[in-house]
Amino acid sequence: MNIIRPTLLIRKLTAKFNILRMVNKAQTNNIVFRPHFKTHRSAEIGEWFKEEGINKITVSSVEMASYFANHGWQDILIAFPVNLLEIDQINKLSSKIKLSLLVESLFSVNFLENNLKHTTDIYLKIDTGYHRTGIASNDISGIEEILYRIGISKNLNFLGFLTHAGNTYSAKSKPDIIKIHNESIGQLQVLKSYFESEYPNIICSIGDTPSCSLAEEFTGVDEIRPGNFVFYDVMQYYLGSCQPEEIAVCLSCPVVAKHPERNEIVIYGGAIHLSKDSVPDNDGNQIFGLVVKLNADGWGPILPDTYVSSLSQEHGIVVVSDHLFDQFNIGETIGILPVHSCLTANLMNDNMAII
Amino acid sequence: MNIIRPTLLIRKLTAKFNILRMVNKAQTNNIVFRPHFKTHRSAEIGEWFKEEGINKITVSSVEMASYFANHGWQDILIAFPVNLLEIDQINKLSSKIKLSLLVESLFSVNFLENNLKHTTDIYLKIDTGYHRTGIASNDISGIEEILYRIGISKNLNFLGFLTHAGNTYSAKSKPDIIKIHNESIGQLQVLKSYFESEYPNIICSIGDTPSCSLAEEFTGVDEIRPGNFVFYDVMQYYLGSCQPEEIAVCLSCPVVAKHPERNEIVIYGGAIHLSKDSVPDNDGNQIFGLVVKLNADGWGPILPDTYVSSLSQEHGIVVVSDHLFDQFNIGETIGILPVHSCLTANLMNDNMAII
Repeated sequence: MNIIRPTLLIRKLTAKFNILRMVNKAQTNNIVFRPHFKTHRSAEIGEWFKEEGINKITVSSVEMASYFANHGWQDILIAFPVNLLEIDQINKLSSKIKLSLLVESLFSVNFLENNLKHTTDIYLKIDTGYHRTGIASNDISGIEEILYRIGISKNLNFLGFLTHAGNTYSAKSKPDIIKIHNESIGQLQVLKSYFESEYPNIICSIGDTPSCSLAEEFTGVDEIRPGNFVFYDVMQYYLGSCQPEEIAVCLSCPVVAKHPERNEIVIYGGAIHLSKDSVPDNDGNQIFGLVVKLNADGWGPILPDTYVSSLSQEHGIVVVSDHLFDQFNIGETIGILPVHSCLTANLMNDNMAII
Repeated sequence: MNIIRPTLLIRKLTAKFNILRMVNKAQTNNIVFRPHFKTHRSAEIGEWFKEEGINKITVSSVEMASYFANHGWQDILIAFPVNLLEIDQINKLSSKIKLSLLVESLFSVNFLENNLKHTTDIYLKIDTGYHRTGIASNDISGIEEILYRIGISKNLNFLGFLTHAGNTYSAKSKPDIIKIHNESIGQLQVLKSYFESEYPNIICSIGDTPSCSLAEEFTGVDEIRPGNFVFYDVMQYYLGSCQPEEIAVCLSCPVVAKHPERNEIVIYGGAIHLSKDSVPDNDGNQIFGLVVKLNADGWGPILPDTYVSSLSQEHGIVVVSDHLFDQFNIGETIGILPVHSCLTANLMNDNMAII
């Protein structure tokens, strides 16, 4: 492959391995696997899931739901607080596929009841500690009020409780992630028991990649919705959710300048390719990507003491280990493992190469 | 205008005002104005510059140069260390337009001399203190060596010295910016005097928006290349480069959830719309955008004590001033002034509305 500008390499074998393992984990635990497609946003990669028997998916926007509906997906959950301004697009979609929406307020429930044209499945967003959005898991009267309203509606069909324990991303260790996960599913179990007599088929749905990758205990969980795991990235590696060799994406970048006096090289590959997400390493350096050598099969192991230290729009600055410096040459390409593959894949949507 | 999902509003009147002022500043100082088009990347907005007599532009990639060449621009500088892997595309371009390239190493100069098919104008990238890339301004022997090689080449035509004092972005005050600017142009003047007898027509070209917006003194400067100023943004406002009413872009975002218990609202508008760039405010809060109300003419003034406090892929969390909280409603849209308009415009390229 002749790569001349920043290009996102996607290693199919690794991605398929990541998919298979999550399929297996869901089956072992007797859980529905409804993967989030916001990470790859690609009909082609969607097929890799279909080949493993997946037929329910999660997306984060009406636009993305329409895209995948147009590519044959028939059971789609939009796991984002419903955007009432897109009601016409929602009605169009729900006339064609089995669409599920996410609500977290009485206001939105009332609006949907008055404006939906077809019966639509509804998840209630529960906040189990991340505090991004959702109704607090201990706000029983608030939850009862919304469920009552859904119960007397004509168009809304209550499916269950949905949470995203995104607070696992701030965890400091694997036991920390497991602790957050257990607390989160514990709260869902309490809700399930409380409402079970009235709603015997309640689904509890969880989503974050760290928990779904690391946890072995899923009591009370009926559905998992991880997305990032298909590619993983440096953030997940630092969290302990994956091994470096399970990262399935790498940005191939031309080297354009070398600065031996400060052991830095400049790559064509910046914020418009990788995104500006960063993570601190153990030495307190802020990392915008890790560095690998490209080879015929894709790329090799992570190079020690070498990392992307800053990004501007098109430039990336790479700090290089002293003894590796001479191995980088202007006019050649190197590989950057992204910090947050979801954002990188979104930016590189038109410049991907599956290998 | 019926906005139902995140859409970048571009206020033409404000952008044209920003363009006119910079045109005027360049004329007053008898300087060539070669605006950077990486901020807007839009042929339509390019026309607003053409209407003011601009006929030379700057871009940051071969791809962008090709795009604008296809839209009639005949004099384009790629102000990025030349990517040798795109030599075929460069040769194609330089057969059609007056193309200028940027070099900063003997290696690249030798490669160009051996591979360019047409005589091409060359700027030498000088590092005057930003330390992103370029040859240090005091490395006279290094500069002489490159200029000598260019001098005996058949295909390279040395135009002058180019710098980007991006260190103004870390300045703490306007006098700080002016100080960095003066030091930077001072270094270029020294180089110019040193090489003037041998190269009597040397151009000195500078680029950063803070300096070009705030400085009044441009001794020795022959060309300015600012880009961001056409839109400005919260970062420039905080630096003092612009007034809030000079910001020409605003992301219109649907409100999807409200959390009165913590004075937060959730908007449909996240990292894939705004980018992850942030700036600290005076109270030490990390700001991912400031908030305005949308109106018939665009948007109103910045709302006090109200800001985007975090972004995930599609969600934005807005902390709202206590007394304004009731004015935000689910199902309505609000405006977010982006922190870094170049990155936001890149992300929103397909969802822009000129107003």
